Amino acid sequence: MTRRTGRRPGNPDTREAILTAARAAFADRGFDATTIRSVAASAGVDPALVHHYFGSKDKLFLAAMQAPLDPGELVPRILAGDPEGVGERLVRAFLGVWDSPAGTAGVALLRTAVTTEWAARLLREFLVTQVLRRIQEHLPGDRRQLPLRGSLAASQLLGLVMMRYVIRLEPVASATPQALVAAVGPTVQRYLTGDLAGVFDDPAGAVAHR
Amino acid sequence: MTRRTGRRPGNPDTREAILTAARAAFADRGFDATTIRSVAASAGVDPALVHHYFGSKDKLFLAAMQAPLDPGELVPRILAGDPEGVGERLVRAFLGVWDSPAGTAGVALLRTAVTTEWAARLLREFLVTQVLRRIQEHLPGDRRQLPLRGSLAASQLLGLVMMRYVIRLEPVASATPQALVAAVGPTVQRYLTGDLAGVFDDPAGAVAHR
Repeated sequence: MTRRTGRRPGNPDTREAILTAARAAFADRGFDATTIRSVAASAGVDPALVHHYFGSKDKLFLAAMQAPLDPGELVPRILAGDPEGVGERLVRAFLGVWDSPAGTAGVALLRTAVTTEWAARLLREFLVTQVLRRIQEHLPGDRRQLPLRGSLAASQLLGLVMMRYVIRLEPVASATPQALVAAVGPTVQRYLTGDLAGVFDDPAGAVAHR
Repeated sequence: MTRRTGRRPGNPDTREAILTAARAAFADRGFDATTIRSVAASAGVDPALVHHYFGSKDKLFLAAMQAPLDPGELVPRILAGDPEGVGERLVRAFLGVWDSPAGTAGVALLRTAVTTEWAARLLREFLVTQVLRRIQEHLPGDRRQLPLRGSLAASQLLGLVMMRYVIRLEPVASATPQALVAAVGPTVQRYLTGDLAGVFDDPAGAVAHR
């Protein structure tokens, strides 16, 4: 056993070294191309120690992002049930998270992502691999349309967060969750499952690119 | 004539002193409570000089914000014509601005507003007094509903900007303006003029507050 892997599992320096290496790897190479083995190598620890601390690559990524919640637990719960109610359920759960203490951590995360390119890359990877992919797994419809549908829904939800919690524009900042669910739920529903005439004009279902 | 008001109108130091005083005043007291006279006093110049440099309080505010465009010119053009097409026209014009060089300045403005409280206050004042008020003046419908309707539309447009130009989430980042107008236009239309059942449950048209 080398000195490095012999460190106590609870060593905060080791934990922090793994998170720093993970943050760099996820931002540089993206979530899919990053392995626990490569993060361990660049942190100078045994891969078993990374597994021991964080459990899985998903959990390591959430810890590296300092994500205040795990979409892997939340998203399947929201998407279970009637697909026609998914917009309202998503907005309601989303506001519940952002109105809670986790929302404060979320605002901090968002501020960093807006001003720092590597943090923006991490947020992008987070949205795609932890949130949108999971939403897409549970939705009906043409698979090829789902990436644009998911990112349109994400644009409305992010805009709501910006106006309510960051810019704090009234009356959105003080409106009840019920009023916002009634206003924004149908938007998210249409983006995810509704008729988007004129958006997918390519017969292959692909969105036209600039 | 005092030494101060005797400065050449083109003096960049004087101009910058006025803008600094204006920025502080608009952020501290808001747009409506700020006067050209009070800005001139705190910059130590004659009010006539502020008029001479900037023309009006609106123009002074836009210069203080470093706003890349004047909504006072853009918004009335977009809102003229069929109210049922206002959503698509607004999204099309909005993407036109953000896809242009003005968009780069806009992203810089947004980054500052997300990380600095006084800049967030300026952006809020900008949205309310320069954009939303003008939109509300041109829209049909119950006046009491318009502030929430306008801020919902602003939330979708800001979210689109965030995803397309700041976070750069695909496929929204590369989608054609046409596809995004077809996707997001109906959302903005519904927020501004459509049926928002369940949002205004108060008979007075007020939105419930937290």
